[in-house]
Amino acid sequence: MSDPKVLIIGAGLLGTSLGLALSRQGVVPAIEDLSKANQRLAIEYGAGVKPFQEPDLVFVCVPPDFTAQAVVNQLKKYPKAIVTDVASVKAFILQEVASQVTLAELARYVGSHPMAGREKGGPGSARADLFFARPWVITPRVDNDSLAVALIRDTASRLGALPIELSVERHDSAVALVSHLPQLLSSLLAARLVAGSEEQLNLAGQGLRDTARIASSDSDLWIQIISQNAPQILPLLVDLQSDLNQLVASIANLDEVGALARVHSILDAGNRGVARIPGKHGGKFLEYQLVTVVIDDSPGALAGLLVFIGEIGVNIEDLKLEHSPGAAIGLVELQVLPESAGRLVEKLSENGWRLV
Amino acid sequence: MSDPKVLIIGAGLLGTSLGLALSRQGVVPAIEDLSKANQRLAIEYGAGVKPFQEPDLVFVCVPPDFTAQAVVNQLKKYPKAIVTDVASVKAFILQEVASQVTLAELARYVGSHPMAGREKGGPGSARADLFFARPWVITPRVDNDSLAVALIRDTASRLGALPIELSVERHDSAVALVSHLPQLLSSLLAARLVAGSEEQLNLAGQGLRDTARIASSDSDLWIQIISQNAPQILPLLVDLQSDLNQLVASIANLDEVGALARVHSILDAGNRGVARIPGKHGGKFLEYQLVTVVIDDSPGALAGLLVFIGEIGVNIEDLKLEHSPGAAIGLVELQVLPESAGRLVEKLSENGWRLV
Repeated sequence: MSDPKVLIIGAGLLGTSLGLALSRQGVVPAIEDLSKANQRLAIEYGAGVKPFQEPDLVFVCVPPDFTAQAVVNQLKKYPKAIVTDVASVKAFILQEVASQVTLAELARYVGSHPMAGREKGGPGSARADLFFARPWVITPRVDNDSLAVALIRDTASRLGALPIELSVERHDSAVALVSHLPQLLSSLLAARLVAGSEEQLNLAGQGLRDTARIASSDSDLWIQIISQNAPQILPLLVDLQSDLNQLVASIANLDEVGALARVHSILDAGNRGVARIPGKHGGKFLEYQLVTVVIDDSPGALAGLLVFIGEIGVNIEDLKLEHSPGAAIGLVELQVLPESAGRLVEKLSENGWRLV
Repeated sequence: MSDPKVLIIGAGLLGTSLGLALSRQGVVPAIEDLSKANQRLAIEYGAGVKPFQEPDLVFVCVPPDFTAQAVVNQLKKYPKAIVTDVASVKAFILQEVASQVTLAELARYVGSHPMAGREKGGPGSARADLFFARPWVITPRVDNDSLAVALIRDTASRLGALPIELSVERHDSAVALVSHLPQLLSSLLAARLVAGSEEQLNLAGQGLRDTARIASSDSDLWIQIISQNAPQILPLLVDLQSDLNQLVASIANLDEVGALARVHSILDAGNRGVARIPGKHGGKFLEYQLVTVVIDDSPGALAGLLVFIGEIGVNIEDLKLEHSPGAAIGLVELQVLPESAGRLVEKLSENGWRLV
């Protein structure tokens, strides 16, 4: 398959990141945005060029509420192009598009959803590796041309993303559980902090920070996502409401027989639920092994460790420095391939490094 | 004040960490545990010695349900010692202790709560820097000897913790909001994952991981905490229940006038609530400045960067490697003191390092 001529509509976080990633693969796309400032910024970043030719493949990367209309416009404007979008709810958009185009036009539309993002939006937050090693859901239908689906799948693969094919319904039900429900819970929790005192919030620890982190997401964007996926979100929220009602009733009457057991069963279900989340890179993917090394708190200490590891030829996949300010030592958490871990531990120990 | 003779009751995560931290400060404590294996492990780690003398200060570090009885036992066993505990709920324990001791004995008890912990328990997870730069709440009462309070405050300070004095009621109300409510929400969310399919969970991203992380906490420990602090937790849960009821009603009837605005107001309150959480080291403490550098994905690349930074004499306070496996580049996020950031950026740029 020769390189497709790609057009990106929307130079926000996703559109600009897509442009950067495609350009790096040698497929320089055209990119346009209603905001001339965003378009210019994206082009200056190297995310593409101004449109100058008829595209083979159009990525619609505009906010959810404008996605269906933009898809319709592109299907009609470019009668031979395959059109896809990157919005996070698929059934609603498909329905809107289907009501405004011919069957022949609809056959050229395949919804998709790269499972990637950041809390910060806009072209300035774009990153060429945003899609790398992330699932990219494609929602083919029986009326789609199989070449259209293959073109999107191949493009996602070239960017290092992991294409997964799902029906629109199964996609929407999955994201309701793993993305939309956590967002709403995090917002509900963080909303309770508004009434907290400064004295109380000063005691906040990492648990609260992690649980409330995504509550900082763009509420204007999320209101669109929640509206579009309400049919899938509602039953999950109702189940959660029932658990919460049970929890409140139990905590209000802890002396009643069985009350404590009901609280425990929810905590216990939480234990089992969180254990089902696949590892950082997804359950199917490689798991790294953790090696923790103690170092002194001096400017050269970490460098010395890494020079040593470089000399023995071990590649570090991920590194985290755990370091209390002013403490005399730091802990370096190294993630390495399982086959390298044994040799790394052995060489470090032999050479006097302290392992935890 | 000369060094106190310290006894630690309970060689779990907190007791052993406390022993390690005190030993590092030259105050080697005695440490005991009903489990001889735990006690021996803690002593072998360097967290203290076997009890051999009458203590001045006793830290009770046993699970919440056993804390009050252990405090009572220590007050009676050592008639001159100051006794404190590290349990995360204070009013309940005070009430239990008060009902079993004389007023003179009670005057020697001051509850405290170091706001530190890990998801993993046991002496093997202990760390000498567990309390460093973390709040350590002390709950003095009018009947306490001021020297008793000062002894605990000074000891916490020597370990690098940040002593904060609060009444037991204000402490319990604060932790209900910033610790117990997030725990319950995270558990409620994760409990919903039990019914999810593998296909759905494979789409999990960082948002779900962060929100559900603390759902993996020890449910046997948490049932004790929740029982003891039920009076403070209940009103918060009832408020949250009311928000959730409103959210469910709105999402079930999105076409009704005002429904969307009600959903938006909860997301918006979440935005405002999360913005109130102080920074990583607490609002009052130093904030570092972030410098992000692009490096190649080669064994020596990170080492080369750190050697360079060592040569220009800049100390790195924290470091995170953002790295998609197999990608050609990695992003190194460096946290440095604000006064070092300008020079670091300048020197890196001059020498051809790519900054983001």
